[in-house]
Amino acid sequence: MPLLVMKFGGTSVADLERIANAAQKVKREVERGYDVIVIVSAMSGKTNELVGWVEETSPLYDAREYDVVVSSGENVTAGLMALTLQEMDVPARSWQGWQVPIQTTSAHAAARFVDIPRENIDQKFAEGMKVAVVAGFQGVSPEGRITTLGRGGSDTTAVAFAAAFGAERCDIYTDVDGIYTTDPRISTRARKLEKIAFEEMLELASLGAKVLQTRSVELAMRYKVRLRVLSSFEDSDDNSGTLVCDEEEIMESKAVSGVAYSRDEAKLTLVTVEDRPGVASAIFGPLAEAGVNVDMIVQNISEKDYGGRTFAVTDMTFSCPTNQVARARKAMEEARAAGQIAYEELVEDTEVAKVSVVGIGMRSHTGVAAKMFQALASEGINIKVITTSEIKISVLIDRKYMELAVQALHDAFELEAGA
Amino acid sequence: MPLLVMKFGGTSVADLERIANAAQKVKREVERGYDVIVIVSAMSGKTNELVGWVEETSPLYDAREYDVVVSSGENVTAGLMALTLQEMDVPARSWQGWQVPIQTTSAHAAARFVDIPRENIDQKFAEGMKVAVVAGFQGVSPEGRITTLGRGGSDTTAVAFAAAFGAERCDIYTDVDGIYTTDPRISTRARKLEKIAFEEMLELASLGAKVLQTRSVELAMRYKVRLRVLSSFEDSDDNSGTLVCDEEEIMESKAVSGVAYSRDEAKLTLVTVEDRPGVASAIFGPLAEAGVNVDMIVQNISEKDYGGRTFAVTDMTFSCPTNQVARARKAMEEARAAGQIAYEELVEDTEVAKVSVVGIGMRSHTGVAAKMFQALASEGINIKVITTSEIKISVLIDRKYMELAVQALHDAFELEAGA
Repeated sequence: MPLLVMKFGGTSVADLERIANAAQKVKREVERGYDVIVIVSAMSGKTNELVGWVEETSPLYDAREYDVVVSSGENVTAGLMALTLQEMDVPARSWQGWQVPIQTTSAHAAARFVDIPRENIDQKFAEGMKVAVVAGFQGVSPEGRITTLGRGGSDTTAVAFAAAFGAERCDIYTDVDGIYTTDPRISTRARKLEKIAFEEMLELASLGAKVLQTRSVELAMRYKVRLRVLSSFEDSDDNSGTLVCDEEEIMESKAVSGVAYSRDEAKLTLVTVEDRPGVASAIFGPLAEAGVNVDMIVQNISEKDYGGRTFAVTDMTFSCPTNQVARARKAMEEARAAGQIAYEELVEDTEVAKVSVVGIGMRSHTGVAAKMFQALASEGINIKVITTSEIKISVLIDRKYMELAVQALHDAFELEAGA
Repeated sequence: MPLLVMKFGGTSVADLERIANAAQKVKREVERGYDVIVIVSAMSGKTNELVGWVEETSPLYDAREYDVVVSSGENVTAGLMALTLQEMDVPARSWQGWQVPIQTTSAHAAARFVDIPRENIDQKFAEGMKVAVVAGFQGVSPEGRITTLGRGGSDTTAVAFAAAFGAERCDIYTDVDGIYTTDPRISTRARKLEKIAFEEMLELASLGAKVLQTRSVELAMRYKVRLRVLSSFEDSDDNSGTLVCDEEEIMESKAVSGVAYSRDEAKLTLVTVEDRPGVASAIFGPLAEAGVNVDMIVQNISEKDYGGRTFAVTDMTFSCPTNQVARARKAMEEARAAGQIAYEELVEDTEVAKVSVVGIGMRSHTGVAAKMFQALASEGINIKVITTSEIKISVLIDRKYMELAVQALHDAFELEAGA
C-alpha cells in the first residue's frame, strides 16, 4: 500500500473546526488508496502557554521536566485528530512518542532521532488501521524519559517518518501556500515556485525559515524525502504548493531561483589584526563560546610598517545578528585583555542588511555575480561585503536600501510572475 | 525511610502560585525525613476543557482516544510540580502512568488497577530522589494504550500507591478542611471530625462524595491505608483535617457520627404487584438495564380478593434520583407491555429527600432508630420510607423538611461543636 506522511502545524489544528478541515484532507488521501501517517503539532498558542508556565516556575529549568510539560500539547491534538477521523469513518488511532517508540538521544529539549522502528505501526496498518496520528516534536530517551526535539520539531518528525516508512511524499500543511521567489510583502511580483531543490531551500533561510525548519530540510535532503509545502486553508490537488525535491527532478534552468534577505544584520570589523597562523581561530573561538552566530567572514591582508619593520596585518570583518553585537564586543575585548588577540579597534556598523540570490543553476550559468552587482549599482546601492557559495551570492548593504535591492534583483533575474 | 503519599486535587494546583504552595507542604515532609510520592490532578478546569473538546469532536467517542486527550492535564501538573520542587532544592521528578508503569485493565475511561510495580520508583529513591510526582488518574493497559480511571480517579491513584509502597499515611489535600458531622451549610453546629471509620465514610456518601471518591475509600479500607483529608489552603500539622481509618483506631463511642442527606430523590410505588417468586428480579432487572440507580427498596405483602379467589399481592416501593424517573417509568411500562410484570399503577412522588444517620457505634448502642424517629416526630415530620443497614438508618421525607430534619437529628444525637 503506498504511504503518505501529512504534517499539520499549529495554525492548521488551532481549533476543532480546523482539525476537522485537516482531517478532511487526510480522508481524501485515504480514499485515493493511501495509508497515511499524520504528524500533528500542538494547537496554536498551547506550546507557548506551556513554555511560559515552565519558565515562570523555574528560570533554569530541568530540561527533562520541560519536555514532560511541553510535549503534552501534541498529545491532545493527536487524540482529537484520531477521534475526528473516526467520526468520518476513517480507522485511525493516536500514537505518542513512547508508543511507537520514537527513539531519540537524551539531549532534552534538543533531542535527535536515533531510530523509528516500524513494527508497531506496521502491525496496526496490517490490522486495518488506515491512519496513524503521531504526536510531533517528541520522542523517548534511552532512559525512558520523554524528550522533545526543540521548537519546530514537528517538521523534522514528519520527514523522519517519511524516511523510515519509505513514504511517497511528505506533505507539510501550513499557513502559506508554498515557497516564493522572494517575500511577497516586499515584491508584489513574487512568484510561487512549483519546485525547489533541497540545497536552494536550505540557502533561502530568510524565506524558508518561517515555512520549514532547517533541520527537516537537511534530513529530507539526506534521505531524499520529497517534501511538499502547501496551505491547509485552500483546496489542494497534486500540483498545489511547492515541491522541495532533488535537483534532478527540476527541469527549469534559471540561474537564480529566489532572492532572500535578512534585515537585522550587523557588520563588525577588527582593524589592524596581526596576520599570523591561528589568528582566525583566536578570534572566532571566543565568539563561538560567547554564543555569537557569525555569518559572513571577510579578511583582507595588507602590510604595515612599524618603526622600520614590516608586519603582515589584516582587517577582519564579520557579520552577526544585531542583538548579538554587545556580546561579540565583550568577547573580543576580553580576548584582547587576555592577550589572545591584538587589534587596533573594533568598528561596528549595525545599520546593514543582507541580500542574497540563490540558485542551483548558478553552477552552470556564468556572469551571475556580475549581473547582481550591476543591478545594485544601477540603483546606486553600495556593496559593503560580498561572500559567495556554490549556489548563493550574498552582499551586505545599507539597511535602508534592502527592499529596493530585493526588488531590483528580482527584476534583474526575471523571477516575476508569468516570466 | 518512612514514606508518605500526598495527593493534591485540581483546586490545590489551579495555578503556579497554588502549585508552589502545595510544593511547600511537600518540602516540609521531606525535611521531616519522609520520602514522598505526590499524586497530582489536572489544574482545575483543564479536564473539563479537554472532555468538552472530545465530546464536541465525537459524541460517541472512542474511549481509548478520550483517555489520550484527557490524561494530558495531569502530565502538565506533574512536570510543573517537579520543577517547582527542584526550584526549592528538593530532588524530584515526574512520572507518567506508563513510566511507573501503572498497570490497569483495558476498560478505558473506567480502568481498574492491576499492579503498581515498585522497582522503577524505588530505584530512583535509592539514587537520591526524595519526591516522585506521579500523574494521577491514569495508567497503561496490557495493550500499551493510555487508560484513565474515570473522574475523581486521582484519589484512587493516591490510595493505590500508598498500599503498594506501604506508606505511613495518604494525605488528601483538597479545598475543605475535613469531614464534618453534617453539611455546615445546613447546620451551623456541624463539627469537624478528628477521625472517622472507613465504613462510616462510605455511608456518608452525601457528605463524602464531594470530598473523597467512593472507590478510593473502598480501596483504603481493603488495604488498611490511613487516609487523611485536609485543606491545602491552611497551615497544617499532624492533627489537621480528618483521619479516615480503621475503626480500631477510633476511641469515641458515640452511636452516631454524622447526619447525611440526599436532596434529589424520588419515590416510586408499583401498586398491587402479584407476589410470586421472581417478581423482584422482573422489576429491578429492567430498571438496571435502563440505567436507573435504585437506592432504597421496600415491599409490603397483603392479600387481595379477586372474584372470590385470594391472591398474594404487594406494593413495591423504590427510590431513585429524580432525573431518572422518566427512564424508570418507561422501563416499567415496557416490562408490563411485554407481559414480564403486572401492576395496577405506578405512583410517583418526586418531592422527597433522604436523610440518614451513620455510625459504627450503632452496632453496640440500642435505641438509635427509636431516637431518630422520635426526633423527627417531635418536629412533625412524617416518615415515608425507612431502610436500615448495620451502621446506617435512612428515611425518605417530604423534601421541604429536609434541612429541618438534618438539624433536628444533629441536635438529637448531640453532634454539635464542643459536645
